[in-house]
Amino acid sequence: MRLTVRPTLALGLGIGLLAFAPTSTGDLRGFTAESAKAQRDWEAKFRAIPSPDSMRSYMRRLSARPHHVGSPYDKDNAEWLLARFKSFGLDARIETFDVLFPTPKERAVELVAPTRFVAKLQEPPIPGDPTSSQQAEQLPTYNAYSIDGDVTAPLVYVNYGVPADYERLERLGVSVKGAIVIARYFGSWRGIKPKVAAEHGAVGCIIYSDPRDDGYAQGEVYPQGPWRPKDGVQRGSVMDMPVYPGDPLTPGVGATKDAKRLPVSEAPTITKIPVLPISYGDAQPLLAALRGPVAPQEWRGALGITYRVGPGPARVHLKVKSDWSLKTLYDVIARVPGATAPDEWVIRGNHHDAWVNGAEDPISGLVPLLEEARAYGELVKQGWKPRRTIVYAAWDGEEPALLGSTEWAEAHADELVTKAVAYLNSDTNNRGYLDVGGSHSLEQFINDVARDIQDPETKLSVWKRAQLRAIADASDADGRKEARERANLRIDALGSGSDFTPFLQHVGVATLNLGFGGEGGGGIYHSIYDDFKWYTTFDDTSFVYGRALAQTVGTAVMRLADADIVPYQFTGFAETVSKYAKEVEKLATETRDKIDERNRQLDEGVFTATADPREPSVPPARDPAARRLNFAPLDDAVDGLTRAAERYERAFAKAQADGGAALAKPEAQALNATLRQSEGALLSASGLPRRPWYRHQIYAPGFYTGYGVKTLPGVREAIEQKNWSEADQQIAATAQALAAHTNAINRAAEQLEKLGS
Amino acid sequence: MRLTVRPTLALGLGIGLLAFAPTSTGDLRGFTAESAKAQRDWEAKFRAIPSPDSMRSYMRRLSARPHHVGSPYDKDNAEWLLARFKSFGLDARIETFDVLFPTPKERAVELVAPTRFVAKLQEPPIPGDPTSSQQAEQLPTYNAYSIDGDVTAPLVYVNYGVPADYERLERLGVSVKGAIVIARYFGSWRGIKPKVAAEHGAVGCIIYSDPRDDGYAQGEVYPQGPWRPKDGVQRGSVMDMPVYPGDPLTPGVGATKDAKRLPVSEAPTITKIPVLPISYGDAQPLLAALRGPVAPQEWRGALGITYRVGPGPARVHLKVKSDWSLKTLYDVIARVPGATAPDEWVIRGNHHDAWVNGAEDPISGLVPLLEEARAYGELVKQGWKPRRTIVYAAWDGEEPALLGSTEWAEAHADELVTKAVAYLNSDTNNRGYLDVGGSHSLEQFINDVARDIQDPETKLSVWKRAQLRAIADASDADGRKEARERANLRIDALGSGSDFTPFLQHVGVATLNLGFGGEGGGGIYHSIYDDFKWYTTFDDTSFVYGRALAQTVGTAVMRLADADIVPYQFTGFAETVSKYAKEVEKLATETRDKIDERNRQLDEGVFTATADPREPSVPPARDPAARRLNFAPLDDAVDGLTRAAERYERAFAKAQADGGAALAKPEAQALNATLRQSEGALLSASGLPRRPWYRHQIYAPGFYTGYGVKTLPGVREAIEQKNWSEADQQIAATAQALAAHTNAINRAAEQLEKLGS
Repeated sequence: MRLTVRPTLALGLGIGLLAFAPTSTGDLRGFTAESAKAQRDWEAKFRAIPSPDSMRSYMRRLSARPHHVGSPYDKDNAEWLLARFKSFGLDARIETFDVLFPTPKERAVELVAPTRFVAKLQEPPIPGDPTSSQQAEQLPTYNAYSIDGDVTAPLVYVNYGVPADYERLERLGVSVKGAIVIARYFGSWRGIKPKVAAEHGAVGCIIYSDPRDDGYAQGEVYPQGPWRPKDGVQRGSVMDMPVYPGDPLTPGVGATKDAKRLPVSEAPTITKIPVLPISYGDAQPLLAALRGPVAPQEWRGALGITYRVGPGPARVHLKVKSDWSLKTLYDVIARVPGATAPDEWVIRGNHHDAWVNGAEDPISGLVPLLEEARAYGELVKQGWKPRRTIVYAAWDGEEPALLGSTEWAEAHADELVTKAVAYLNSDTNNRGYLDVGGSHSLEQFINDVARDIQDPETKLSVWKRAQLRAIADASDADGRKEARERANLRIDALGSGSDFTPFLQHVGVATLNLGFGGEGGGGIYHSIYDDFKWYTTFDDTSFVYGRALAQTVGTAVMRLADADIVPYQFTGFAETVSKYAKEVEKLATETRDKIDERNRQLDEGVFTATADPREPSVPPARDPAARRLNFAPLDDAVDGLTRAAERYERAFAKAQADGGAALAKPEAQALNATLRQSEGALLSASGLPRRPWYRHQIYAPGFYTGYGVKTLPGVREAIEQKNWSEADQQIAATAQALAAHTNAINRAAEQLEKLGS
Repeated sequence: MRLTVRPTLALGLGIGLLAFAPTSTGDLRGFTAESAKAQRDWEAKFRAIPSPDSMRSYMRRLSARPHHVGSPYDKDNAEWLLARFKSFGLDARIETFDVLFPTPKERAVELVAPTRFVAKLQEPPIPGDPTSSQQAEQLPTYNAYSIDGDVTAPLVYVNYGVPADYERLERLGVSVKGAIVIARYFGSWRGIKPKVAAEHGAVGCIIYSDPRDDGYAQGEVYPQGPWRPKDGVQRGSVMDMPVYPGDPLTPGVGATKDAKRLPVSEAPTITKIPVLPISYGDAQPLLAALRGPVAPQEWRGALGITYRVGPGPARVHLKVKSDWSLKTLYDVIARVPGATAPDEWVIRGNHHDAWVNGAEDPISGLVPLLEEARAYGELVKQGWKPRRTIVYAAWDGEEPALLGSTEWAEAHADELVTKAVAYLNSDTNNRGYLDVGGSHSLEQFINDVARDIQDPETKLSVWKRAQLRAIADASDADGRKEARERANLRIDALGSGSDFTPFLQHVGVATLNLGFGGEGGGGIYHSIYDDFKWYTTFDDTSFVYGRALAQTVGTAVMRLADADIVPYQFTGFAETVSKYAKEVEKLATETRDKIDERNRQLDEGVFTATADPREPSVPPARDPAARRLNFAPLDDAVDGLTRAAERYERAFAKAQADGGAALAKPEAQALNATLRQSEGALLSASGLPRRPWYRHQIYAPGFYTGYGVKTLPGVREAIEQKNWSEADQQIAATAQALAAHTNAINRAAEQLEKLGS
């Protein structure tokens, strides 16, 4: 489900200078000297097992036919996966849920004036690509969870369709009220586009793939190259997932057979206006028929036309009608039971459903997971007994709305709260650099793992390569200094876009999301061309990055499963939160200054004086003057967290000194229980404003970005919305969550101090 | 000749707060209270005279037929202008020069592999645009001063063809040795493209107009809109004017009948490789035939293709052959003799030649000049007697190489050195904001003038509108503060691109270049579509900005001609030079840091580690470590200049106090003589390294930018070229010029102190 355009790896993952080696007294954090030695041996054995050839054959099988939610091959794949897990020796079963998943019955996009053009809405098969011709089984091109509708209205081009684009339109004197908007993909998660359009009064929304973003402007198109061909369409969900993901009818609870369900008409996450995605082949006549102001420079795509904004004279007819029946999800869950602590779980997941054949998304991330499971089966036969229970999940229904993971996490929430040590996710996998996002209490841990994995292209460790990339990409000398000298390379905070969301942001499980990327590229995302032929021609063709991902995640899972003490580390988290606090404080100042400056310019007449009388231009609206916020509670909370984290770190160093025998004491169990609660302490019971499902006070997807993370989301978004009283409330709520987390760390430190004494 | 794409007016022209009014004791700088009152009256009378209708009729006549150098209508226009000046009552004559101006006899651009395509090289007439069909008289599409050549070679796309683009190509492993390059217009003056291509071993150069820069990407194309149509071509000179402008055969001296001439084969400013310009209609098949690496993101234009770099498989045949005979220039020179100081000259010019019909370039700037001259004729009849001589010039041959102005300035250099008070230039004129560049000793003067001119669209003064634009465009709070609070808005430093160059940079006359712009736009620059129909449909259609330009420049000329003391002001210049000094010091530090950082990354292996093995990538070359420079001589010279400027300002305030009777003393003549030498003191006898014709030590066109200015050019370009010993020499040379200028100011201050005592 994640976007295929490669983000700049602002700071990748890796370890800085060799001089900054981890804990000097223990080779592996949380292990005794003795247990670390055994662990190293098992991990080395593990990493020799994953096989590119196996992954290739799994991908061929899993992507052989379209396998979206509700399709025969989706269930078939689930059963095949179940059989594989069992054949590897794992204890596996399928859990089902019944969820609302609309599939289209009627679709139309037509230009009705000034000329007539009927959009094709169809991706043609490509000779030499066998699965592209499986039209009978393919889902049509559509956006799932679009409300049914049939509208005809003038067209307006809204660029990416994010709030800033509508501010620009207002300056141009263009309103979308009563109009159908056409937005291009990218610039936000797609579900934001109809949401913001509807907020501004639009009656319909068309989303198209501009060739500038993932078509011919980027390179040769499929099948000659990896990029999006003229008729390629990006399917995808447009549900309002920033409110809650999962089944729209069962928010907060598992969509079991007898769950209480909302009526469809009351489901708040279905769009307010009809939406359809189209190709650039279908978009060109619509865009070319627009008049009105020429689109601002940065709104212009790569079609050979003058991009104009409208409204009209292009009038468009848009129609969507779906089958709104429930469909069954098949989550495949496999376990390696823990020998010592069976009620402590390390969970690892990747989804198995796709929009069509989905070789890249998600099969490229699923096949390493299968090889990890196969390897564990072999290690168990050789005598490996993981301390904790390992839970492997192949989720169904990620594409429509993180359905399989969300319903499972909601159904098992109570267990997860007490048992889960960590959730490790992957999704699509490509070539290049290890890209990690997640809970910063696991930052040092995953840096340590990354030092042990070899990059297949350069033969450097994957952390060394990521470090060199971070040096190359840093925007200034400070960034380069940090990439070179910080003990750990930073990991990203997580927003949304894959199955980690319910674990991290709803239940409060420490989470990591991992994948390789940054090299190559393509434009087959969510189209019929994302298939075995494409992936094995243009992406990780030899599956060496598939193997590297299995080695990375598998090593991480084993190490988390076997550590005497769960290897969370909090000083890095404290430093990161302190950075976020500085960011929101700066944002508040800048927002206030911006309001003051704009109001001053309105007083000076800047906007009227600089308007070209031949061009439409409307001065911006005046904002009420902003007031200052009291950040003291947040800053105090960060200070308290920092002190607690440092205390824990001192106690940890002492406990792990001299072979770390203390870590093996039976009392360590209680410490581990405290640690498992620490991420959960960052949740608030009432959740974020207007979206209580999202409870994490540090990480959330943005209400107006969709995938993109907002850190300290309650505070940050209140400031962005210029809601100063809410900002004050959210400062208090965030400080409270940090204080609860700080208490957990202090408790853990105390337990650790006793252990070491 | 200037580019038509509107530059961002980083800081326009205008006066800041009303609180910062100029000299409180005298209403007009350099005038006694009494002379100021008379001056105000004459200026008000003057500004009532220029008539939009007259300008429209002049434009219709002057642009009625193609009038390039050597054409019948060029001479016809000169004679018509002469007659106009005479009819206004001015003393006018034509001065001729004989210069090398090649015109094409044979031209070919053909794709010869992998398929065949013959470029049209022809701009079609447009129905409803009468002058576009005058094909018999139009110069073909070509680049003047391209050497003759006939080459066939693989094609390489080089973006704008500036040095940084070749560094990028090297990183991609692409060489242009033996290739024909295709570069797009913009990003530098066009003559830089073949120069840099030849330096890198290319054998030919094609320059095309990408629709992204001035075609359909910007808006509707001609005749539906103002932008460049598919077959529109930008003609233009590619002579190496950063070495010297003017006749290639007579550097430094006027190209009079019996001037000593270089053989054509030894003229250093003719290109080293053949060059032709083409339309985007002709360019598309060539670019589409390229393979090799996909062009970097920022190199991609608006054609609906994948932009690739090559080399090949596209092979191109390029042929150019010209008639290299001498042609005659007709400079039209008119005078209003000075009543009191006939040997002090205020010179005002605009060229009259065009590439084809040239309604915008240059007639839109010439017709205000004509109205200024007509108005002076009327004022003289009413009894106005300018103190100094006013010289009005309509230059020929600006388009090929600033021929008419350069030859005239070279021929009259001795007179200019002693007599010239200032040179005021204009070229094309459009709508929007007063845009001023020039000598900073005239910054306050022209700010004062701009406060007296009304903007036709907003009815604000043109300086107020420019100030509000500067506030709107400022990139940060410091920029806005400066725009709001600095006594004068900054004027730009001048590079090249119009007839001011010989006056300012070769002879050392204080100079201003003025025009309105910043609104509207178009893509007819140097094509057959730059004509009366286009201008009166899309540009300053009611000629109100023509009138505003006549009012601005005419007022400035009158004020300079009548002031008792020439109104130079040096504190603003000193502050500006101090800013330039800080810039070059920062540049030296940044260049050194960049070299160190790149060498460090080479040592670390960053470039090899971050290379995608499937993409071509070559690590950059290692630079020798940079050394520190001694800027003390420059900083000391700036301090000395600042002290002298402040001393002069104190003396000036005293002299102008209480009615300023001191200014009217006969001894003021000697002070004026000193002041006239002050700009010239900034010249060095030996000129800039490798281009002795350019003698100004503060302002020059960049050796690798062409139009774009380099301030403190000797120092700045040595640093850019990493030539540290030359940088040291140039710091000394620049400091020496500043010291000479400081001496002149101190002499003037002394004279003024005596005058006031």
